[in-house]
Amino acid sequence: MSASPNLYADPPTRTDEESFETLLAAPGLRVERIVSGGQASPPGFWYDQDGDEWVAVLKGAAELRFADEPEPRVLAEGDHLLIPAHRRHRVERTQNPTIWLAVHLAPR
Amino acid sequence: MSASPNLYADPPTRTDEESFETLLAAPGLRVERIVSGGQASPPGFWYDQDGDEWVAVLKGAAELRFADEPEPRVLAEGDHLLIPAHRRHRVERTQNPTIWLAVHLAPR
Repeated sequence: MSASPNLYADPPTRTDEESFETLLAAPGLRVERIVSGGQASPPGFWYDQDGDEWVAVLKGAAELRFADEPEPRVLAEGDHLLIPAHRRHRVERTQNPTIWLAVHLAPR
Repeated sequence: MSASPNLYADPPTRTDEESFETLLAAPGLRVERIVSGGQASPPGFWYDQDGDEWVAVLKGAAELRFADEPEPRVLAEGDHLLIPAHRRHRVERTQNPTIWLAVHLAPR
């Protein structure tokens, strides 16, 4: 008897969109699985989030750029980092597929 | 430039003990990487935790037994489950190595 959905499973539906599933929701946090299929943030778009977010690449690879750094961070399988609240960032590149685990924290 | 430690890396030191690393600590939660090397909970020992814990098996395999269930849950790579506060449980078996990701929540 095993848990569902498996972290490494294919996304529940194949679409051109990224897939998002909440795995755990509790006061102050949400754990989410994200499956990317080669998407990147739109040109010129920057995320600016009210809460901290911790992300890990479970499968695949990605490049995440912080607005205050000249080059993107290259994230291989198993790499992870903290995106502090209001540190502007964008996803420059993802492999198809890339499976992320994200922990979203409520604003302090 | 990548994050450290990589989730899939070998534990920092090879010992007969399980390895524990805190990846993220924030008010109300702690994200931890645990590397098991075949350990199980001591005979007759049951965890009884004050806060919820969400665990995922990133590599390897494990069997986790709840005291109120007759058989252990078999966790393969990518399986995950929530261990509610005060639901007594024990680890019956782990492969060597097994890499866990655990999210510990503060008691409500």
